[in-house]
Amino acid sequence: MAEEAEGRVGLSPTSGSDQQAPHFLQDVIFHGKSKLLKALTPQENTQSQQGLYFLDGQRRVDYVLTYPVKKSTVGRSCRQATHLLTENAVARSLRRGYQSRDQHIRHHQVPRAQNPSSPPSSPGTDVELGCLAETLYGQEDHKILRRAEFEGKLRDMGLELEKDEDTKISGVAFVKIHAPWNILCREAELMKLKMPTKKVYEVKQLSGVVEKISSLVSKVVEPLHPQVEEHQPKNVKHLSHTFSREKQHLFDLSDKDYFFDSKTRSSIVFEILKRTKCKAKYSMGITTLLGNGVYTAAYPLHDGDINEESAVPNDRKLLYEEWANYSVFYKYQPIGLVRKYFGEKIGLYFAWLGLYTQMLIPASLVGVIVFLYGCATVDDNIPSMEICHPRNNITMCPLCDRVCSYWKLSTACATARASHLFDNPATVFFSIFMALWAAMFMEHWKRRQMRLNYEWDLTGFEDEEDHPRAEYEFRVMQKSLSKDQKSQHKIEKLTCQDRLPAYMTNIVMMLLMIGVTFAIVFGVILYRISTKAALYMSSNPVTRSNAQLTVKTTAAIINLVVILILDEVYGAVARWLTVLEVRKTDKSFEERLIFKTFILKFVNAFTPIIYIAFFRGRLVGRPGSYLYVFESYRMEECAHGGCLMELCIQLSITMLGKQLIQNNLFEIGVPKLKKLIRYIRSKQGAFQEEERQKKLQRYQTDHFLEPFAGLTPEYMEMIIQFGFVTLFVASFPLAPLFALLNNIIEIRLDAKKFVTELRRPVAARAKDIGIWYNLLRGVANVAVIINAFVISFTSDFIPRMVYQYMYSPDGSMHGFVNNTLSYFNVSHFQQGKEPMDPLYLGHPVEMCRYKDYREPPWSTTPYEISKEFWAVLAVRLAFVIVFQNVVMLMSDIVDWLIPDIPKDISLQIHKEKILLVDLFLKEEQGKTRNVESRSCTEGKKNCSSRSSSNNNSSTVAHPHSGLHTNSTNSL
Amino acid sequence: MAEEAEGRVGLSPTSGSDQQAPHFLQDVIFHGKSKLLKALTPQENTQSQQGLYFLDGQRRVDYVLTYPVKKSTVGRSCRQATHLLTENAVARSLRRGYQSRDQHIRHHQVPRAQNPSSPPSSPGTDVELGCLAETLYGQEDHKILRRAEFEGKLRDMGLELEKDEDTKISGVAFVKIHAPWNILCREAELMKLKMPTKKVYEVKQLSGVVEKISSLVSKVVEPLHPQVEEHQPKNVKHLSHTFSREKQHLFDLSDKDYFFDSKTRSSIVFEILKRTKCKAKYSMGITTLLGNGVYTAAYPLHDGDINEESAVPNDRKLLYEEWANYSVFYKYQPIGLVRKYFGEKIGLYFAWLGLYTQMLIPASLVGVIVFLYGCATVDDNIPSMEICHPRNNITMCPLCDRVCSYWKLSTACATARASHLFDNPATVFFSIFMALWAAMFMEHWKRRQMRLNYEWDLTGFEDEEDHPRAEYEFRVMQKSLSKDQKSQHKIEKLTCQDRLPAYMTNIVMMLLMIGVTFAIVFGVILYRISTKAALYMSSNPVTRSNAQLTVKTTAAIINLVVILILDEVYGAVARWLTVLEVRKTDKSFEERLIFKTFILKFVNAFTPIIYIAFFRGRLVGRPGSYLYVFESYRMEECAHGGCLMELCIQLSITMLGKQLIQNNLFEIGVPKLKKLIRYIRSKQGAFQEEERQKKLQRYQTDHFLEPFAGLTPEYMEMIIQFGFVTLFVASFPLAPLFALLNNIIEIRLDAKKFVTELRRPVAARAKDIGIWYNLLRGVANVAVIINAFVISFTSDFIPRMVYQYMYSPDGSMHGFVNNTLSYFNVSHFQQGKEPMDPLYLGHPVEMCRYKDYREPPWSTTPYEISKEFWAVLAVRLAFVIVFQNVVMLMSDIVDWLIPDIPKDISLQIHKEKILLVDLFLKEEQGKTRNVESRSCTEGKKNCSSRSSSNNNSSTVAHPHSGLHTNSTNSL
Repeated sequence: MAEEAEGRVGLSPTSGSDQQAPHFLQDVIFHGKSKLLKALTPQENTQSQQGLYFLDGQRRVDYVLTYPVKKSTVGRSCRQATHLLTENAVARSLRRGYQSRDQHIRHHQVPRAQNPSSPPSSPGTDVELGCLAETLYGQEDHKILRRAEFEGKLRDMGLELEKDEDTKISGVAFVKIHAPWNILCREAELMKLKMPTKKVYEVKQLSGVVEKISSLVSKVVEPLHPQVEEHQPKNVKHLSHTFSREKQHLFDLSDKDYFFDSKTRSSIVFEILKRTKCKAKYSMGITTLLGNGVYTAAYPLHDGDINEESAVPNDRKLLYEEWANYSVFYKYQPIGLVRKYFGEKIGLYFAWLGLYTQMLIPASLVGVIVFLYGCATVDDNIPSMEICHPRNNITMCPLCDRVCSYWKLSTACATARASHLFDNPATVFFSIFMALWAAMFMEHWKRRQMRLNYEWDLTGFEDEEDHPRAEYEFRVMQKSLSKDQKSQHKIEKLTCQDRLPAYMTNIVMMLLMIGVTFAIVFGVILYRISTKAALYMSSNPVTRSNAQLTVKTTAAIINLVVILILDEVYGAVARWLTVLEVRKTDKSFEERLIFKTFILKFVNAFTPIIYIAFFRGRLVGRPGSYLYVFESYRMEECAHGGCLMELCIQLSITMLGKQLIQNNLFEIGVPKLKKLIRYIRSKQGAFQEEERQKKLQRYQTDHFLEPFAGLTPEYMEMIIQFGFVTLFVASFPLAPLFALLNNIIEIRLDAKKFVTELRRPVAARAKDIGIWYNLLRGVANVAVIINAFVISFTSDFIPRMVYQYMYSPDGSMHGFVNNTLSYFNVSHFQQGKEPMDPLYLGHPVEMCRYKDYREPPWSTTPYEISKEFWAVLAVRLAFVIVFQNVVMLMSDIVDWLIPDIPKDISLQIHKEKILLVDLFLKEEQGKTRNVESRSCTEGKKNCSSRSSSNNNSSTVAHPHSGLHTNSTNSL
Repeated sequence: MAEEAEGRVGLSPTSGSDQQAPHFLQDVIFHGKSKLLKALTPQENTQSQQGLYFLDGQRRVDYVLTYPVKKSTVGRSCRQATHLLTENAVARSLRRGYQSRDQHIRHHQVPRAQNPSSPPSSPGTDVELGCLAETLYGQEDHKILRRAEFEGKLRDMGLELEKDEDTKISGVAFVKIHAPWNILCREAELMKLKMPTKKVYEVKQLSGVVEKISSLVSKVVEPLHPQVEEHQPKNVKHLSHTFSREKQHLFDLSDKDYFFDSKTRSSIVFEILKRTKCKAKYSMGITTLLGNGVYTAAYPLHDGDINEESAVPNDRKLLYEEWANYSVFYKYQPIGLVRKYFGEKIGLYFAWLGLYTQMLIPASLVGVIVFLYGCATVDDNIPSMEICHPRNNITMCPLCDRVCSYWKLSTACATARASHLFDNPATVFFSIFMALWAAMFMEHWKRRQMRLNYEWDLTGFEDEEDHPRAEYEFRVMQKSLSKDQKSQHKIEKLTCQDRLPAYMTNIVMMLLMIGVTFAIVFGVILYRISTKAALYMSSNPVTRSNAQLTVKTTAAIINLVVILILDEVYGAVARWLTVLEVRKTDKSFEERLIFKTFILKFVNAFTPIIYIAFFRGRLVGRPGSYLYVFESYRMEECAHGGCLMELCIQLSITMLGKQLIQNNLFEIGVPKLKKLIRYIRSKQGAFQEEERQKKLQRYQTDHFLEPFAGLTPEYMEMIIQFGFVTLFVASFPLAPLFALLNNIIEIRLDAKKFVTELRRPVAARAKDIGIWYNLLRGVANVAVIINAFVISFTSDFIPRMVYQYMYSPDGSMHGFVNNTLSYFNVSHFQQGKEPMDPLYLGHPVEMCRYKDYREPPWSTTPYEISKEFWAVLAVRLAFVIVFQNVVMLMSDIVDWLIPDIPKDISLQIHKEKILLVDLFLKEEQGKTRNVESRSCTEGKKNCSSRSSSNNNSSTVAHPHSGLHTNSTNSL
């Protein structure tokens, strides 16, 4: 340090005027020197509070950039040489009278005032830089140059940097960034941050009975609230106002270190980082620099440690104890604290997840009740009684060609009884309930969002279009380079034409992927048909009797495995396709990516289910003229209870399988496994490693955490689950319950991940959950239609109704089973398709029955579709129309009845506006008086002349001077 | 004046310190005096530019309040006495040392600086005021007191007032209000108005081919643009920024008189008026004062005259020439100017109306083509050919009991041919087209709105909750008065319980009104049935042959008249019901009113049409067992061509009738009639009247105009029309054309009304058209379902398709008519219902035919509904489902494909934000440098110490001082 200071002093005499050498040069210079200084740091270590502060222990580290360093000595000498060269160059240029105020280049940079715009370096300097450029030509040196330039610009913007190149982690250097108070103020003003003012007002208490009830309720739910102390009493609120330095007196600036909290500070620094561009061949922002490997990582710091008992209490620790912990699973989330620590965007995700989980409670309650209703009424169900009754000795047609024979309907008793669990009138009620539930959920979320917006001072905040992405800028640069010769136009954007190949690839790939899903589903169907046929043909009777079960189980597992694998594949494909598109901003990139991923994953998860619900068993044909695939396999039928039962099985396997495997295996198991591996490995590194870990600075430990990869996977998982909960709820009333159980774990799992395993994300402001809301809305809408179809086509609800009210002789369900079965004359079997063992039941069969509405063999048009079929079809379709429109209307009414903005919030917003206007008006009056009294005391003459002029009633008054004191002063 | 001045001077020696007598007292005092001053005004008249300025000719009149004056001398003496009393009181209180800076009370108030908050008047003064309160007790005097208080408060707020009590209009006095510059600034800041800054930037020109095309297009449409000069070149735009006095340097304040245009000035004054409250028994805002008759009217002034050739060019005149004029009907509207003159809300209405009209052009084009297609293909239509062909000698069952006889189907040839015009495959296409058209219209409007928001600097503006309405405050006051004894709580709002009776009345009345509509429709049906029966029974053959025509025409006219009358009634009822509700804010009042009016008017307009489309002819029964109303009248059937034809007739009569009568008669005819009456009357008043009119000041002529009553009626008319255009478009493809023709007139009609016949409305800011958009969206959604039903149930489209693809022996339409007719054995007629003249056709009839799908008499289940019926029904329902969902999906896709924010706008918004940030950053740097150089020049020592400290590399720099110069100065 002493050496360097001397070097500086040697130059000082010439620096009477401002001088401006390009900053990156300076940094190149000190890069070489940094090694000399490392001896000084250890003592300062304790001061700097575990790396949360600069070495001076005063300035907070608001952001960290990391870059790789190589411990090679190659090039050192050259760099030393260039160093000297540049020193000379700088000295010479100083003598030439360059303006530069602060070229005092030290390793630990101290605060510097802002520079005026830098003049371009002179040709003379350029010549001398020739060597420099040459020697630094290598890839690595190019990066050093970039970094130097970038960091110089950051300093120009007023940020303060401190480097740490020689850390305990070999190969990684850190740039710690601190934003001083004035920069924070400036940026807060530019970002239009709303901050609490000194002015508080009392939030009106509820009156009378309502108050008593609410206090009672809050007492009851008291243990459900996390133990996070709130600083201010509940009935007092600070007025908020957009921060502005001219209105500084409004804010409580007594503690400037904590006026902006750590997440705000880091997002301010990030804002500056995004704005700062290196002017290389093309302008490079921080994303480009990260992409090119000039920097390896950029992250803000966590607030402190969580594990150590001795650790200073900090928000992170509090979150860890009161939120990211399975033992508090029954409590509300401390959303305010989450927002304070992670920012609004992540806060909104958890608030949304919390509300969703909360809303699942009534849904799963009703679902369980519906299921229990099914269980309770299974014995009173006439159709299944009729099926099971041995007296109804109905002979059914064989289920497969040749090898199968006739069978008795009463053998299907078990499935018939089981299917009643899911196929009863309560299901209809439940799917209407769930449609309204979804609408309520949407509305509640809108209200919650609005409330949070208000509480988080986001009212009035508008989403800004983001800075362009690095890839986009790179492509634009490429394009403008390639076209430079042809035209003078500076190309500033990509046209549709540029993107056409990408769009085409997108469409083709999306269709291909969807095709793959369909093909796989079809493959599984074929597997099922062919295996079943093969097993039936087997001579082993055990194999034959277990055929159905074997095939179903294996097929379902295959389906699940395929879904899980394709899920990962589709995620990758969607990302690749979106990268191809070269979207301009991060926001549109994210939206496109989400959209594509959503479509692919949705198709993937729901195609097999949709097949079972709406296609399976519909295209079977009839005895005597079955439909064949590949001319030999009959299409599959559903078991006698209807396809609803199979749908339910498939749904539960897929949903539970996905949740168990994706959540528990991938999200819990894999990290545990990693830890285990690390533990085994550390056996070798042993003590050393652990010790090192302990001594690491905050910015170094955070470097070892996973980078934050966005909320998309979390949201996506939830929305697919929302699909399971709403789309086929008519067939699986327990879905909400399973979702609820999953989510209770999911919240804490995600919380743990955010608090302990990820680097702290940069706080992003957001008013809403963006595209996710639209997707949810879309799923909820589709759910209405799908449920309508499930009830009317998959379940037997409509045929039962039609029978009861149109055909039943006594208005009861008796005879329903008989009514749904058509007759088939066994002599009409095609040649070679009749059962090999026609006497399987012990007696010859003349007529067998099959489930369909067709004319009997003795009618004039045998085996034609009967009138009943059309009647039932018409009623089914009518039900779909009525159900869809009624439910949609009811959802709209729910939407309309529940105001989007909670009443109390809108009142408070209004009240705050009035209070603010009052505040300003009073302030103005105060100022006017002050100015007047001042002018009175300062100049007696002025004052008396004023008052006399008042009295002479020629009051052309000087209100301007009074009111504008402030503004004119600031000009 | 001299007298008064003397009186003042007499007081002046004591007024060295500020003195504050309640303002309203002062005004009471001068109220008595005003008559003395009237002699002075005429000379100043010429200066004041026809009443647009105060008498000094300098200060603009931004707003006018009027109140009634009585020319009575009663009470004058008492007032004189109180005047003296108060003078004494004031003098005494002055001696007591009250602070009051400007109690210089003159009739024509001059600008005054703001007062500090007024101290309460002392007990001593109160005693003396006792007499005053007593003498002013009368109703009229109470109002004077209120006015005085209110105007005093306005002066406190910084407004300047000028009274004109003795105008040429007897009985009306005017208070002219002027907002001085500093008040405008203050309020603009509080209202967060965005104003253009000095900073301009170039909007990027399109490049290459696109540019050429766009310039070509703009040349072609050049004559369509109104000749309104734009001040700035098109490719340059001013950056806008929220106005703030601290940032005054950003704005071009060279011409302070025109920096805020007249509409902004008036809306600023209106804002202050709304905020100012009289503290009587309860707080009274301007609306309450207007409601109580303290003031009679409040309006801003028009910009000038329109008719006089000599008139100074002004915006109003320009609007009159280039917009509110039938001769420019083909031109675009000068929306920018409309907004500049009337404010954003009205600007948005006309922009919306313009876009709607524009969008109607393609719709009506396609509609006409569809209609022409129907005309062209009428001769190739097989069903009507079959009906018309004399060879198909089908005998039909009688149309009424006893008096009617069998008839030949070929006599229905004409109606069958006519109905093909509206019932052909093109209609299906057209209704899909119109559904998409509606979606496109919505999207386009969103985009247009966004563009206007950007151009009008409304981005970032948020709708504020309005001040409470007068009625609401009154009710709250009443409530708190009545409950005062019971509890200490200050009641601040109405609870649900208070509103319960109103809600109940609302629901009951709404249901009642809807019931009335239904009853009337049913009445018309009965009229039709019974009259028809009566006419058929008539012995006169001419009467009988014209029965059908007579009944239809009279019924349609009755329907129309009823609709028109009920429209007015419902408007009144809705208003009454909404007043009952006592909504808190104007906005919620308006929304409720709109909602109720919309429901009632919609039900009123569409119930008869829905009856015809979906119910008529469905509940007829069959020959041998007809359905009877009142046991004697058969329900009406549609003519053989189907009900679509009748639907079309009803639709066109209602739509055209409504438009012709409501628009032309009410909106054009009635004003003309009024003018005529005025003209005839003026024959008596003759010359005098006209002369007087000419000499009137601006604020006086404006007083004679109609007050602005809101945009609700205009929007409502349009939305009902939108209903006609979209709801039943499948049956009436010419609807868009008629709507287009109507709207071309409507735009200019409304424009004329706003420019010439109404007082200038206070400019209201609005980002969107509010609830109307939701209503439009709702209508568009309902339209999809209704069109689906019209196509599948009202038209014969589906039966034709089913026949062609399911039953036709050769796949053609031949035989369709025969297929749709069932057989009836005439021997099965009920006793007394068979025709009296069975040999009417000249031969005995055994079997007659009727239009229905029923089993023939010879089947096992005669006259039962046939299989075909169910099949057709199923297909119809399936079509509804497919149509509804496909069209809704397509609308959603349109919605999704077209971005809500136009690309160029979002780019420009982004660019502007960056430019603003740059601007501020540069400014800061400039300031820092300035401060530094200033400190260098001012104190050499300071400067050198700074630079040396720089050199000593202990740069703890003074960035704070630099960056905070501004803010600290302003503290």
